[in-house]
Amino acid sequence: MNVIHIKSQSRNQLIDITRMVGDVVQQHSVQDGICIVFVPHTTAGVTVNENADPDVQRDILLGLERMACHADYHHCEGNSDAHLKASLMGSSQLIPVENGSLVLGTWQGIYFAEFDGPRQRRVIVQILNSTAGR
Amino acid sequence: MNVIHIKSQSRNQLIDITRMVGDVVQQHSVQDGICIVFVPHTTAGVTVNENADPDVQRDILLGLERMACHADYHHCEGNSDAHLKASLMGSSQLIPVENGSLVLGTWQGIYFAEFDGPRQRRVIVQILNSTAGR
Amino acid sequence: MNVIHIKSQSRNQLIDITRMVGDVVQQHSVQDGICIVFVPHTTAGVTVNENADPDVQRDILLGLERMACHADYHHCEGNSDAHLKASLMGSSQLIPVENGSLVLGTWQGIYFAEFDGPRQRRVIVQILNSTAGR
Repeated sequence: MNVIHIKSQSRNQLIDITRMVGDVVQQHSVQDGICIVFVPHTTAGVTVNENADPDVQRDILLGLERMACHADYHHCEGNSDAHLKASLMGSSQLIPVENGSLVLGTWQGIYFAEFDGPRQRRVIVQILNSTAGR
Repeated sequence: MNVIHIKSQSRNQLIDITRMVGDVVQQHSVQDGICIVFVPHTTAGVTVNENADPDVQRDILLGLERMACHADYHHCEGNSDAHLKASLMGSSQLIPVENGSLVLGTWQGIYFAEFDGPRQRRVIVQILNSTAGR
Repeated sequence: MNVIHIKSQSRNQLIDITRMVGDVVQQHSVQDGICIVFVPHTTAGVTVNENADPDVQRDILLGLERMACHADYHHCEGNSDAHLKASLMGSSQLIPVENGSLVLGTWQGIYFAEFDGPRQRRVIVQILNSTAGR
């Protein structure tokens, strides 16, 4: 069980963790398999999206804000939008591993999705060996 | 292949299946690996979110309702919102397994997400051993 | 690493890839395990939903359009809605494999979700053997 520690800086934030996840993959001897990124929080998630123009991350957060804001939430902590956004992004992501490295598209990065920061957060990274017959 | 049977009670409902999934994990001899929860339906999904205040579940359903309702759907069965919500939550979730138990955050529960109930539903649970080199 | 090549025909499109993914599963000797479908793009994703009435696919795209359109996006390429939709659907899906075949519900199909087509696209398919003790 590999744990990455993160400190988010604002209430809504997409934090690029691609290199940190890639480092965990490098430390394992798995050549072919899958990498699982799991977020053990309920007001944060994880997503895979563009790593080039930071405006994409800003726009994703803006779009989610418009979708998840709502006048009639009941939850007393006042962060129901964060819980909804976490479920929309998901608490886990899967990335293939080949030749000991993450198989990501040219423009793909892995983002920790903070929706109720700033906070100290954790991300769990697992690697499973592919034992598929060929 | 382990199957959990569920009976939903209303059209939209988040049903806590954490204990049922955990029981399946306990029955296996896998110490370290991942647990996969898969929903074989198209108007229901599965999500991981807060297990404490039931208002969070209510608010997630409310937020999804606002997002997915639409005046111009064509699908004759009139449940297009349910299909969209199912894809937004996803048909599967992954949870790490360590020392023979689910690794969930303190406030995390696994929820079957019903969007076109009440119905009899099934959930498939699989456990994969981690054979990753360390 | 199995790669499926797809050519999308319009900007927003759900393309049924169930048979192509099933063919990859058939070519492997894995009897029990999971199939992972991964999309290495940032303006497309993958989802599991109804394979019967094509209006469901149309309505899902319509609902996503309404959710993701926004007046104040900054990203210069003008396709921020596509990035957001990709994260909402997800870049990967998991489907159980039993007796050498995909375990999908009666009405479930696997859809490549194009949000910025028409384009040439790739889908990565992996199969992991279940080595879980029973």
